[in-house]
Amino acid sequence: MTNFYPLPLNETHDPDLKSWVESANGHPDFPIQNLPYGIFSVGREARRVGVAIGDYVLDVSALDGVFAPEVQDAFMQPTLNRFMGLGRACWQDTRLRLSELLRDDFPSPFESSPHLHHQSDVQMHLPFQVGDYTDFYAGIHHATRVGSLFRPDNPLMPNYKHVPIGYHGRSSSIVVSGTPITRPAGQILPDPAQPPIFAPSRRLDYELELGFVVSGGNDLGEPISIEQAREHLFGVVLLNDWSARDIQAWEYQPLGPFLSKNFATSISPWVVTFEALAPFRTAAFVRPPGDPSPLLYLQDERDRMLGGLDIHLTVSLQTQSMTEPQQISQSSATDLYWTPAQLLAHHTCGGCNLRPGDLLGSGTISGAAQQNAGCLLEITMGGKDPLPLASGETRCFLEDGDQVVLQGWCEKEGFARIGFGNCSGQVLPARQIEAAQTVEQ
Amino acid sequence: MTNFYPLPLNETHDPDLKSWVESANGHPDFPIQNLPYGIFSVGREARRVGVAIGDYVLDVSALDGVFAPEVQDAFMQPTLNRFMGLGRACWQDTRLRLSELLRDDFPSPFESSPHLHHQSDVQMHLPFQVGDYTDFYAGIHHATRVGSLFRPDNPLMPNYKHVPIGYHGRSSSIVVSGTPITRPAGQILPDPAQPPIFAPSRRLDYELELGFVVSGGNDLGEPISIEQAREHLFGVVLLNDWSARDIQAWEYQPLGPFLSKNFATSISPWVVTFEALAPFRTAAFVRPPGDPSPLLYLQDERDRMLGGLDIHLTVSLQTQSMTEPQQISQSSATDLYWTPAQLLAHHTCGGCNLRPGDLLGSGTISGAAQQNAGCLLEITMGGKDPLPLASGETRCFLEDGDQVVLQGWCEKEGFARIGFGNCSGQVLPARQIEAAQTVEQ
Repeated sequence: MTNFYPLPLNETHDPDLKSWVESANGHPDFPIQNLPYGIFSVGREARRVGVAIGDYVLDVSALDGVFAPEVQDAFMQPTLNRFMGLGRACWQDTRLRLSELLRDDFPSPFESSPHLHHQSDVQMHLPFQVGDYTDFYAGIHHATRVGSLFRPDNPLMPNYKHVPIGYHGRSSSIVVSGTPITRPAGQILPDPAQPPIFAPSRRLDYELELGFVVSGGNDLGEPISIEQAREHLFGVVLLNDWSARDIQAWEYQPLGPFLSKNFATSISPWVVTFEALAPFRTAAFVRPPGDPSPLLYLQDERDRMLGGLDIHLTVSLQTQSMTEPQQISQSSATDLYWTPAQLLAHHTCGGCNLRPGDLLGSGTISGAAQQNAGCLLEITMGGKDPLPLASGETRCFLEDGDQVVLQGWCEKEGFARIGFGNCSGQVLPARQIEAAQTVEQ
Repeated sequence: MTNFYPLPLNETHDPDLKSWVESANGHPDFPIQNLPYGIFSVGREARRVGVAIGDYVLDVSALDGVFAPEVQDAFMQPTLNRFMGLGRACWQDTRLRLSELLRDDFPSPFESSPHLHHQSDVQMHLPFQVGDYTDFYAGIHHATRVGSLFRPDNPLMPNYKHVPIGYHGRSSSIVVSGTPITRPAGQILPDPAQPPIFAPSRRLDYELELGFVVSGGNDLGEPISIEQAREHLFGVVLLNDWSARDIQAWEYQPLGPFLSKNFATSISPWVVTFEALAPFRTAAFVRPPGDPSPLLYLQDERDRMLGGLDIHLTVSLQTQSMTEPQQISQSSATDLYWTPAQLLAHHTCGGCNLRPGDLLGSGTISGAAQQNAGCLLEITMGGKDPLPLASGETRCFLEDGDQVVLQGWCEKEGFARIGFGNCSGQVLPARQIEAAQTVEQ
């Protein structure tokens, strides 16, 4: 096995490891091979760092003398930013230590067990303070399918296969999974022959994405090469880039999406580290014959071999008449046209400085087939083909009360399955608009 | 005089006030009627709040017992964010107190004078920590002229007069005036029949803008009405939205500008408060017959009467062969199609939350005539008509070593002139690119 890139495999990835936390063994998301980080609190206590293990959260801030002082200090912070700033060697040491501590052969688990909280007893928070949030557009099937709705003959822009297209998103409105999403109001143009109106969005959508969390930055004017990019990436979250398609269609020219996206972006509470993901690295997207080679600053042979991520993704929807979510789509991170390292190298190639806590969205991850699309805009062909649900209902776009749940996991022969948990959000009705506002003028 | 909106005039605006700091009297930017805030340091001392008065900075962090404890604490911070969070009543009290303290009839100026530093002896820093940076596109002459380069028959998009067009910018690369600007490299397409290349930008430009500084935010999902918008705005800075036109042209579709803008944005070090600007409020842009009325959420009669800003603006350029900058353009903030209150109300109308320290760029402020254009792209008609300089040189776009200086001021019969100082930056050569990268592939 090629295990020199991007990160080494070691004893923490051994599929035979078991934990004394019994619910971890065989857990679909959080076995001892995962060990993702999050920020939690219990009751009115302070926010601090926790590690998911089975159905529990280990309060790593409470373990005296287990970690180096700078790690212990970082674990007492209300965000992961300080820990992420300690660098890969420290993260690797900490992962080893955590793995030993939670293993079933650890001699004194009782010292740790009082610091286990059942996940249903804790409140999860935004895991890191986001400096800048950038959203890319690396899902080529999404870009092609959405482009074809607007430009059937020429769905992909000429730049798409050369430039990792991205734009700046809004960091203030990034929220943790579980936060309700108020339907936004905005300018929409229901009838192109009439002036726009101000009204609640009628075409509210989700977007299935991954978020790549930047750990360490660069100075302004100093690009990060693709070879160095992996040193600047800490982990991965699920990301729902909620989108109001009608607001987007009217506002986006010429400077891109703005209010159609900035009302909320949800991320999962657990950051799965690139160390945990090491067994699931895979080849970058294989460019079909005729596609251009990436420019040199986006080329790295090892990244081409193992820079991709083999992550399975699903979207489930629960309407108010359902008793549980129904899966409506599945796709794979292998359908991303650009690797995380390429996104990061591109982001900085002109000198833009990244900071710890910056978040890079992948763009909507859709498969080649319609049923593998990562948003309703694609699934329903722009709202023309309603999606039938098991409840007998249909959906073109999201309705009030609908809950969207993103899930992601990795599985591979010879390794334990690890997962991301849920990234969920329920749509609340739009804020009341004064009657005068809704009159078509 | 209508002085009830947006802020009252009071004794601090009296044009006859004089200061015991003699250089303030008749100073073009910083008379006692201005009192802008900035962050400065001397040598290796800590960053703290200062107020510009004449040629000096008053170290307001060092004045014991002059201000309320929360103000004194805020003045000892390394950014203005805490002070901005104290709210308008506090800012107004503080302005009154500063005005009294610096007046020529103040009984004991010697208590303050040791805390005066000549501006040439201090280092200025970024005045506030920027949460999110949004750049609008409210300069209608700029939008029209740039649009006409691409779409001669239909320069303005159909949404322009309805939607205050804006997009999210990059907050990490906002720098204070004086910071050198490294020419960015990126993907450009010199020959549309050939693939793109990675090379230093050949079409580097400035953009003359104002930045509106947000003081207090709103909760996610809770819009700020246009009537309330002024309570959330602290002050104004000059802003240079450096732009790489060749990178922009190739990357911007379909999601807007990204690397072409995020390599640097310069702002002036002194934040001129909306209190200081009160005498210079003026009518909003008068929409010509045929233009649509703003939708109701962007309408406020008082904002229409006095929501604009009468600020004169100039751009000067100093090439390496010049001994001083040459003015190459002048324009006016009265040419903004939308008021600051409209921009803020629009930004939040879908529920997006603002935070103290958020920065709203106005967009490039150009006049109706070509010589009043706020960027070289417009002045040179997309690089086709070189701008002749007094030195005998010409410019289509910026060359290495060029320094761009933005200036802004307000003057009006019956009031003292106040100004913003400089927002300057010099272009440094691009970082060396490995030879292999520059080969056209």
